[in-house]
This record gives sequence, C-alpha cells and structure tokens, in this order.
Amino acid sequence: MVLLSEGLTQVLIPVAALLGIGFALLQWYLVSKVKLSGDSCSSNGHTDRLLEEEEGVNNLDVTAKCAEIQNAISVGATSFLFTEYKYLGIFMMIFAAIIFLFLGSVKGFSTKSEPCTYNKGNLCKPALANAVFSTVAFLLGALTSVLSGFLGMKIATYANARTTLQARKGVGKAFRIAFRSGAVMGFLLAANGLLVLYVSINLFKLYYGDDWEGLYESITGYGLGGSSMALFGRVGGGIYTKAADVGADLVGKVERNIPEDDPRNPAVIADNVGDNVGDIAGMGSDLFGSYAESSCAALFVASISSIGIDHNYAAMSYPLIISSMGIVVCLITTLYATDWSEIKDVSQIEPTLKRQLTVSTILMTLGIAVVSFLALPSEFSLFDFGSEKVVKYWQLFFCVAIGLWAGLAIGYMTEYFTSSAYRPVRDVADSCRTGAATNVIFGLALGYKSVIVPIFSIAIAVFVSFSLAGMYGIAMAALGMLSTIATGLAIDAYGPISDNAGGIAEMAGMSPKIRERTDALDAAGNTTAAIGKGFAIGSAALVSLALFGAFVSRAGINAVDVLTPKAFIGLIVGAMLPYWFSAMTMKSVGKAALKMVEEVRRQFNTIPGLLEGRTKPDYANCVKISTDASLREMIPPGALVLLTPLITGTIFGVETLSGLLAGSLVSGVQVAISASNTGGAWDNAKKYIEAGVSEHAKALGPKGSDAHKAAVIGDTIGDPLKDTSGPSLNILIKLMAVESLVFAPFFATHGGLLFKLL
Amino acid sequence: MVLLSEGLTQVLIPVAALLGIGFALLQWYLVSKVKLSGDSCSSNGHTDRLLEEEEGVNNLDVTAKCAEIQNAISVGATSFLFTEYKYLGIFMMIFAAIIFLFLGSVKGFSTKSEPCTYNKGNLCKPALANAVFSTVAFLLGALTSVLSGFLGMKIATYANARTTLQARKGVGKAFRIAFRSGAVMGFLLAANGLLVLYVSINLFKLYYGDDWEGLYESITGYGLGGSSMALFGRVGGGIYTKAADVGADLVGKVERNIPEDDPRNPAVIADNVGDNVGDIAGMGSDLFGSYAESSCAALFVASISSIGIDHNYAAMSYPLIISSMGIVVCLITTLYATDWSEIKDVSQIEPTLKRQLTVSTILMTLGIAVVSFLALPSEFSLFDFGSEKVVKYWQLFFCVAIGLWAGLAIGYMTEYFTSSAYRPVRDVADSCRTGAATNVIFGLALGYKSVIVPIFSIAIAVFVSFSLAGMYGIAMAALGMLSTIATGLAIDAYGPISDNAGGIAEMAGMSPKIRERTDALDAAGNTTAAIGKGFAIGSAALVSLALFGAFVSRAGINAVDVLTPKAFIGLIVGAMLPYWFSAMTMKSVGKAALKMVEEVRRQFNTIPGLLEGRTKPDYANCVKISTDASLREMIPPGALVLLTPLITGTIFGVETLSGLLAGSLVSGVQVAISASNTGGAWDNAKKYIEAGVSEHAKALGPKGSDAHKAAVIGDTIGDPLKDTSGPSLNILIKLMAVESLVFAPFFATHGGLLFKLL
Repeated sequence: MVLLSEGLTQVLIPVAALLGIGFALLQWYLVSKVKLSGDSCSSNGHTDRLLEEEEGVNNLDVTAKCAEIQNAISVGATSFLFTEYKYLGIFMMIFAAIIFLFLGSVKGFSTKSEPCTYNKGNLCKPALANAVFSTVAFLLGALTSVLSGFLGMKIATYANARTTLQARKGVGKAFRIAFRSGAVMGFLLAANGLLVLYVSINLFKLYYGDDWEGLYESITGYGLGGSSMALFGRVGGGIYTKAADVGADLVGKVERNIPEDDPRNPAVIADNVGDNVGDIAGMGSDLFGSYAESSCAALFVASISSIGIDHNYAAMSYPLIISSMGIVVCLITTLYATDWSEIKDVSQIEPTLKRQLTVSTILMTLGIAVVSFLALPSEFSLFDFGSEKVVKYWQLFFCVAIGLWAGLAIGYMTEYFTSSAYRPVRDVADSCRTGAATNVIFGLALGYKSVIVPIFSIAIAVFVSFSLAGMYGIAMAALGMLSTIATGLAIDAYGPISDNAGGIAEMAGMSPKIRERTDALDAAGNTTAAIGKGFAIGSAALVSLALFGAFVSRAGINAVDVLTPKAFIGLIVGAMLPYWFSAMTMKSVGKAALKMVEEVRRQFNTIPGLLEGRTKPDYANCVKISTDASLREMIPPGALVLLTPLITGTIFGVETLSGLLAGSLVSGVQVAISASNTGGAWDNAKKYIEAGVSEHAKALGPKGSDAHKAAVIGDTIGDPLKDTSGPSLNILIKLMAVESLVFAPFFATHGGLLFKLL
Repeated sequence: MVLLSEGLTQVLIPVAALLGIGFALLQWYLVSKVKLSGDSCSSNGHTDRLLEEEEGVNNLDVTAKCAEIQNAISVGATSFLFTEYKYLGIFMMIFAAIIFLFLGSVKGFSTKSEPCTYNKGNLCKPALANAVFSTVAFLLGALTSVLSGFLGMKIATYANARTTLQARKGVGKAFRIAFRSGAVMGFLLAANGLLVLYVSINLFKLYYGDDWEGLYESITGYGLGGSSMALFGRVGGGIYTKAADVGADLVGKVERNIPEDDPRNPAVIADNVGDNVGDIAGMGSDLFGSYAESSCAALFVASISSIGIDHNYAAMSYPLIISSMGIVVCLITTLYATDWSEIKDVSQIEPTLKRQLTVSTILMTLGIAVVSFLALPSEFSLFDFGSEKVVKYWQLFFCVAIGLWAGLAIGYMTEYFTSSAYRPVRDVADSCRTGAATNVIFGLALGYKSVIVPIFSIAIAVFVSFSLAGMYGIAMAALGMLSTIATGLAIDAYGPISDNAGGIAEMAGMSPKIRERTDALDAAGNTTAAIGKGFAIGSAALVSLALFGAFVSRAGINAVDVLTPKAFIGLIVGAMLPYWFSAMTMKSVGKAALKMVEEVRRQFNTIPGLLEGRTKPDYANCVKISTDASLREMIPPGALVLLTPLITGTIFGVETLSGLLAGSLVSGVQVAISASNTGGAWDNAKKYIEAGVSEHAKALGPKGSDAHKAAVIGDTIGDPLKDTSGPSLNILIKLMAVESLVFAPFFATHGGLLFKLL
C-alpha cells in the first residue's frame, strides 16, 4: 500500500537524527579549533594576518582577556539556568501530578480496557494508562526542552569569544565561527527532538501495542512538556536579558555617555549573560516546543484516521520522516554558508543568511515531494469534525509545501521590515531627526504594518491545507514551516552569538575596528533574530490551530460557532489575553530595569575610580538583580497562561474554551509579530545611524547626536517588546492549545461546572 | 397587550426629543450670557471679583484678545469642516449609487411585490423599493451625522473663550460654562438623532404600510450613513488635530522651550482648531453613529420577531422609548452639575464629572424598568438563527440595564487608568525619572492592562443579554450603554473646550493663574475624554456584535463556525485589520507632523523677531498643512474600511465575511482601548508633573526637568494613539458590520465568486 516499508522507516528516522547529531558535533569540533589560550594564529593551520598585527598591538593579552570574560558570561548563564531549572523542577512535579489526577479522574482511575472511540470494535487501553503515559510524555518533553535550551546556551557561550578572536582575522572568518556555532545548536536541537520523540513512541508501543489511539493521545503530553518549559524559559530569560540590557543602556549610554558593553558598566556581564539565557536558551526551548507540538498534533490526528486504524506504520510516521528529510536538507544547506562560499565583505552577510532560507526551502520542497510519494498511501480518509474526508497523497505534499513557503514569505517580509537595507527602517531612522516621539510613532506604525503579509501568508497556508486535508493538513503545514528548523535556528542563534562577540571585543578593550566588524555581524543578527521570531510565531499560529482542531475533535464538539454566547465570550476574552500577558511582562521588565538602574547608578556614585576605569564594578550584584527579578516575575504570566485553560474548561466548559483558544490565537499573532518587528526595526535604525554607511545615515549621526539619542530611546523601548513580550506570546497561544488538548477528556466529562449549576 | 398605546407612543417620543432640544437651547442661552465684548463683569447679574482686578491688570484688552482668538479658531474649524464636507458630499453620492445598484441588483431591479421572508403569507414591497429607501436612509443618516459634528464644533468654539473669561472669576464658574456647553452638544445630538430617526420611520411608513420587514430593513441604511461619515470625521479630524499638536509640541516645547499654546508658535491656531474638528466633531459623529446603528440593529431584529409580525407599535418602538427616557434622565442629571451643586476647588472637578455618570446610571436603571414594564408585552418570540426564542419583558430590562452598567464599569476603570489621582498614572509619571524609554514601556503596559476589566464587562454584558434575548438583547444592551449618551457627550465635549480655553488664556497672555485653572479643568477633561472613548468603544463592540448578528440572520446563515477554512481565514485577517488601519493612521500623523515641524522651524528661522514676540507667525500656512494632510490621508484608511466588506463579501462570500467581522471586532476592541488609555495616561502623567500638587510630583518637576521632558515625549507619542488611531477603530468595527448588514442580500445572492469559480 505504501512504498516505504515499516522496517526501512524504523531505520531511516534514527539514522537521520544521528546524522544531525553527528554533524552538530563536527561543527562544534571545528569551532573548538579556535583556541582561547596562547597562540591563536595557527588555528586554521595557516597564519592569518591579525588586525592587531596591522595596528601593532600585542594579542596574547587580548586572548586571555576574552577567555576571562567568556568564562564570566558562561558561569553566569549556567548558574542562572540551574537556579531556574530548580524552580522548574518543582513546577514540573506539581504539573505532572495535576495531569495525572485530572486525566485519571476522567473514568475514575479505571484500570479496565475500553472500546476504542474511532477504531470501532477494537479494545483500547484503560484511562489510567493514558493518564500515566501522558504524564511520562509530559516529563520527557519538559526534559528535552530544558536540555535543548541548556545545550544552546553552552554552545553560544563557547562560541562568543571565539567569534571575537576570529574577527581579528576578518569578518568572513568571524561569520563562519558564529554561523557554525548556530548550526551546532540548530542540528542538535532538531535531531534531539526527533530522536527523543521517535524513541518515546517506540517505547510506548511496547505497552500500547495496537492501540494507536491511546498511544498518540498520550504522546501529546510531550508537546505540553516542551511548551510549558519553553514558556518559563522565554519569559524568565526575556525578563532577565532585558532588565539587564535596558538598565545598562539607561545609565551607561544615556546618562554616563559610555559605549554599549563598556566594561565599566556594572550591568554589562548581566546583559551578556541575558543574551544567552533569553535569546538562545529561550528561543531553543520555544522552537523545540513548536516542533514537538506540531508533530504531536499531526500524529494524533493521523492516529484516528484510516492510516492509524489500518496500522500503516510508514504513513503514520510521515511527520517524523518529513523532519528527518529536513535534517538532511539543512545539512546540505549549511555547507553553502560554511564551506562552499566565503564572505569577504560585510555587505555579503545578510544575503548569505537569506540565501540559507531560500536554498533550504527550495531543496526541502523536493524533499517533501519525495517523502510524500514514498511514505503515504495513494489515498486515505481523515476524521474531519464528525464527517469523513478522503485525502490523496499529493494533497499532503501541497499542505507541507505551503507551510514551508509561507515561512519563507514571513522570513522575507520580516527582513524587509527590520533590515536597514530597506526603506522602512530608514524611514524610522529618518524620523529620529525630530526626536524620540516621532521615532516611536513611526516604529509602532512599522510594526503594525509588518503584520499584513505574514497574516495573509498564514491565512493562505491555513486555507489551502485546511481545505485539502483538514486539521491534519494544518499540522503538516506547521511541520513544513518547521522542517528547516535546523537552518532557521542556526541563523537565529548566530545573532546573539555575534552580539556577545561585540560585547566581548568592547570589554576586552580591542580595537574599534574589531567592534565595527562584530557590529556588522550583529546588525545582520538583529534581522535574522527577527526572522527567527517570524518563523516562531508563524509556526506557532499554525501549530495552535492544529492543536485547537485536535482539541475540538477530542472534546467531541463538531463546530465552534462564535454566534453563541458561550463561544463569543471566550473569543473576546481570549483576544484580550495577549494584552494582559504583555502588560505583565513589560511591566516586569520595566520594574526590574528601574532596579538595575538604581544599582548601576549607586555603583557609579559610590565606587571611586569606576568611571575612570581604575576599579572594577560589582558585576555579581547586577546579575543577582536580573536573576531575582526574572524568577519572581515569571510566575504571574506563567500562571495566567497555564491556569486560564484549566479554569475556563472546568468552569465554563469546552465551547467557551474553544472560543478562548481561537481569540487568543488570532489576536496574539498580531501582537507578537508587530512587537518583534517594531523592536527589531528600532534596534537596526539605531545601528544604521551608528554605522553611518550612507550619506543619509551620516547626516543623522554620529553616535551622541540628537538623532542618535532618539534612536537609542526607541531601541530601549523595543527591547522588552522584541525579546520579552513578543516572543513569549507564541508560547501563550501554543501552550493554551496543547494544554486544552491534553486535558480535553477531563473538560468533556467534568467541565462547564457553572452552566451545569445554572 | 401592551400598557402603552400606539397614540401615546407617537406623542412621547417626539416630545422627549423636543424637550432635549429645548434644554440644549436653554443651556446655549446661559452660555451666551458671558459676553465676549465690553464689560464682562456684570455677566451674571452681579459683579464677581476678577483675577485681574486682584492682580491689577486691565481686562478690556484681554476680552478683545480672547474674542479675536476665538474667532480665528472658529473660522479655521468652519473652513476645514466645509472643505471636508465637500469631499464627503462627493463620497456620499458615489456610495449612495453603489448602495442603490448593489441592492437593486439582488432581484434584478424588480418592481414586483414578493412574499415576506418572516411574516409568512403576507406580501412585502419590491426589492427595488428597499434599494431606494435604503439609499434615502443612508443619506439621511449621513446628513444627520454631519450636522451633529458641525453643531458640536460650533458650540465648542462658541464656548471656549467664554470659559477662559469665566476662569477669571474662579474655577467653579469656568467649569459651569464648559460643562453647559458640553451639555448643549450632548442634548442636541441625542435629541436630534432620535427625532430624525422617528420622523424617517413615520415617513417611510407612509409607503411601506404594514410591511415592517422592508421598512426596518431599509432603515438600517441610516446607521450606515451615520457611521461612514463618522469614519471620515474621526480619521480626518484625528489626523488634522494630531499633526498640528505633535508638530507644535516638537518644535515649540521640545526645541524652542516655549510653553504649550504660546502665540509665537505658528502651529498654535491649527492645534486649537484641531481640538474642535477632531475631538468634538469627530466624537459627535462617532457616538451618533453608534446610537443610530444600535437603534437600527434593534429595530431590524424586532421587526422580524413576533412584535413586528403582530404589528405592535409601542413594543416595536421600545428602543426609541428607551432613548427618550434617556434624554429625560440626563436632563435631570445635568442639573446636578450645573445648578444644584457648585465647584469651589479644582479637586472637586473630577468627582463631579464622575458623579454625573453614577447618577445618570442609577436613574436610568429605574427608567429602563418603567419603560420595559409599559412598552413591552409580557412575552414575545424572537427569531434566533433559525430557531424561535421566547423572551419575557423583565428579561429585556436586564439586557438594557447590564449594558448601561457595563458602560459605567468601563467608565470607572478608564478613570482609574487615566486619572493622575490613582496609582497607574503616578507610576508612569514616576518612570519618567529614568527617561522617555521607561515612560513609554510603562505607558504601553498600562494600556495593555487597562483592557482587562472593560473586556470582562463587555463579555458579561454580551453573555447575559445574548442568553436572555439573542441578538435583540445585545442591540438593546448597546442602546442601554448609550441611553445616557447626552451626559456622556456633555462630559466628553467638556474636555476639548477646556483644552481650548487654556490655549486661549495662553495666547491672550493672561495671568499664569488663569492657565493653572484651565489646566485643572483640562486634566479632568483628559480623563473624561478617555471615559468617553471607553464608552464609544464599549458600545461599538456591542453594536457591531448586534449588527453582525443581524447580518448573519439577513444573509441566511445559521452558524459561524471558526473551524471551517472559510471562516477561519476571515477571523485571522479580520483580527489583522485594526493593525493595518492603525499603521496607516499613525504613519499619516507622523508624516504630517514632520511637515508641520519643518514649517514651524522654517518660520522660526526666517521670520525675524518671531521668537521675541515682535512679529506674528503665519498661522494660515500651518492650518493649510493640517488641512491638506488630513484630507489626503483620510482616503486610504477610509477605503480600507469601506472596501474590505464589499470585496470580501463579493469574492469570498458570507462565511469569510462573518469571520472577518468577528475577528476585527474582538481584536479592534483591544487595540482601541489600550491605545486611548495609554495616550490618556501619558497626557495626564505629564500634567501631573507640571501641576506639581504632591511631594512626589514636585520631585519629578518642574516644567523643563529631565523627567518632564521624558513625559512630554510620552504625551506626544500618545497623541495619535488616543486621538487618531484608537477612536477611529470603533468606527472600523461598527462600520464594517453595518455595511455588511446593508449589503447582506447582495452578498447572499451574488457573493462568494471565488468559491463559485473553484
């Protein structure tokens, strides 16, 4: 019935995952060849001319300094993440208990096998087993998510100083190191996520046997685990990094007029630690969560289709095979950036990164065609909200491909709106002439405008995939968008690494020319970070729609009619949640930043000789402020996201919860996209003025001019928007959906208490 | 069957309307007793001590100056509105033709009577008649809207200088004049809207006779006319006022360090004109639109219920009787503020205004009970998306009352978030210590947070009224919220009048103490303006839901299931529209403000002696810039709002359009509320620092301090948010809904071309 046999499938998936891990380790090895001690000149086997040599400065001292700073950042990041994980461990245990109790209570902790819901006539495993395995899957997802974030951070802090040192040899070499390090993270994460999921399914199968309904229902816990950790990672890390960044900038750049990342600034280490725990670890967990959730949603929907009922293993594994193909495609694509081309000039950085997206998308389209042809039966039938829908294999190709291409469209649009190479950012920079107020007005308008094309892209992807293959189509479109996740993460992680590299160059007192090179890397990094956020939010939208659909199927409702009071109040309140959530996170950053400002001011005022560079500031105190603030402040937004579906489902029932999910999805996407693009644009408008590469930019600059000051204010406002509130919203919409899906049997049985009472 | 006879109903409604108009004229007469020429001391029949007398300044000169400035403002505003109306006249004609052609084409311009849809067995008037009468109703609505805005502007420009002059006698006297003038506008508008609607229905009835289905279907054109004019009024006026305001502030306050409203600033007249054409005329048209639409929605739904089928005139007129009762209640309430109490101190201003809301709400609750008891049958049945629903008269009481009280809750919350008497604004002011960036971060967070309670209030009102009486319940809840519109408008219009009064005081070179008094009036005005916007958006949400429901009924669909591809893409694109729209309007304000800045700078640089006050600036050029910008820039957002439903309905069909309406409703409400509250809070945070009434405020001030400069930046950013984008969004969501309703028969017959082709 399917060209690919079960045996071959069982081999191909782990082989692809191991290939990805192997490739990541190879990249790591190549990065490690840049030595942080002693003579770094011979790192590539031949001697490159260093900038210091040109300028006649001794480099040994600089290398040692870089190593020292890198160490401080790495220690700070590790210690923060361990503290965070301690809290998350407690949370994980409590939430695991809740999952077990809620799901177990559905059928009164019954240990009797029951007739299956969809695979009529067969017997399925007892409800208690599903509760146990969902809980286990949750824990596995949570651990994998934590591991993804942690590994990403480790690599990034390993690579940052190495990128700085390579910058002495030229921007191309530095780029290669930064990009390779990004690739380590991308491939480790994609391959790891696939491998754990694959192994879990096979282990669960030992118990479930032929009961695929129960098996894939339990596996959804994996997505919930991944996303709930990602929530805290994003929010906690986001508050950490931006409290430090905003605090450092407000006193350092604005009041004391010292450069960014100046070692005299007491908050500078906290700022650099923040990049790694927020942008890297948070992003890693986030995208892993999306990947896990879309896979779980697709698998769940497939398990109750004719594929699942016929126990067609290869077709059932279609989502995993797509991801496997993605790893192979990204591997080839990466070689373009790292081995088959070389960057000679800063102007080539952005095109090279963009080419990564384009190449991987084109190659992947072929890959999808191959996989769809090999792994799917010529036609199969899906359960589509009460009715049956017959789907052909080539229709699935279009579902996955449109998701992939919608991602590319979002990526390109994001680049257009956040890169200083195009008009929107230049207009924002230009508006700085009349001060901070016009800068903010133009920046907000830019963010609002930047949602148009992404939303149309998402709408088209949804329409096509929904029409062709129902909720399965949407889940597969999401997975299509995420199929090139290894490349996406590589170019995304590249950003904070370059940012850190610049920081280290400044702190180590290296030549301003080095800083110029790392700044050029970083400016491209801002754009790619925005692109990464675009992908994250785009895929989150598709994922949560797929999860929402799966929830509705599982909760046993056939329609979500907004013209009923129950669903409408859910819809409007759901649309409000992103605002509530953003209010919390922004205020948290603001409050923490104010504390940071006071501490930095205090140090400048009380530590003699600090401003003159004679004494060292007390970095640890600032690290502590960020740590405390983020751990304390991540609890309320986390509680909002996690408790809302539980409360709504239990008290108001599944109709209101459906409305709530739809509302938060369609509203949250807009807030998230506009927030990250506004922030990215402000950041690059500032960098555009600082770099002064065009006549126009020179007229606005230099650093310290009124226009530049206005640009700095915009950049500071953008920080919490683009790195705290915006990206956390992806998780809000995904997590509420996957949580509803996991708890659906409970809500369907015991939910809607209020209306039952009335 | 109903206690109120048809004859008595026919008398009561026009009597209430005329009473309202009479009361408005009386207030106008009282305002006119403050003379703008000669000796103003004896204006109230007794001599009050003037501030100038205390300070020993001649007052005759000041009075003449005030009169001169007032005249300039009035001439500017009138000339702008006439230019705007010329454009709107052309638009009205074109749109009237479109309505006629689209609706006429539904049944091929048939002149044959047809069997009614709901009143089975009876004959209804031909489709062509409905097309003609819908077009006429549209024109009537448009004219009434224009008249409402124009009258409001006339009164406001008549009252502003009089308020300034009264401020010499004390803050209480000035308050009374400003409030009386607001009342003129409130009562004229409420009574006028009711009267025109009442007369139109009776005239239409001469043709329609017993065909109430056709009659009230055509009357919906009245709402469309009202709202489409309001759209251009709000957007055009909003761009006008904020281009001038932002431009004036950026050069005057920030660069040249001269006070707000200083006569040396060339943009100062344009700024003051803007208050009248934007905040006054725009707001008037907007609230009139809401009133007209909710009445039309309620009447339409009632006409296809058992009330309409049984031709029960008094019950059918229930919405109009509620509005009549509202006029009476507001009349009594107004006397509290103007005659039965007196303000002795600035601290009493805000409580007095707030008391207006509370008193009118309490009295109106009784009024609703009386009307519900007298005008409604003990029970009747409604058409509820394909099924019948039996409703009792006391259930309608709860629908109207919950709308009314939800409005009060929104009003109170808005006051809490925008008045400097409470913590949120003080926190924002406090964040100015660390500069503009934290001010903006805190302000945005405040706006986001301020949506929570209003959304829950709306959700509760929707849930209760929807559950009790379907779409009729929601329309009546909207009308309940608007029943105290006369009071709402009075306290709202009071704001810009006080703002202008302060401007005139400054320009006439009056004592700083006068300015302090008008500033106190104005600070309360910012809060009441925000409350007015809260009402406008809250009622818009309810109205558009009611219109949406009426549209769905008329288009013949029974459910809007978001889990269908067609509806979902509508939902997500609809949720995007408020962002697209805001991007346009904010960018328009930004661009126009930049032009204004250049012109003001040019004048300061090229006109010798301007800054020293020896020469007069060229006010006219600035007025022209604002006029041109607003007329040019109002077209794209206007086109977006008006064309979207037409294109969506024609090409994608009614399901996608339904999704679009739901999405723009639930998303637009959030954007609108957060935008107006953020802006209001920034404005009052700035005023809080300037006034320096507490120790805390003094520590942040005085004018010109760093914290104050940061506050000014926030205020400037808030200007387009609170006065252009935010309030225009109400109209976006209402107008798209009422347009869909009017064109529903066309879409149902000819719509969805794309899917018909596929």
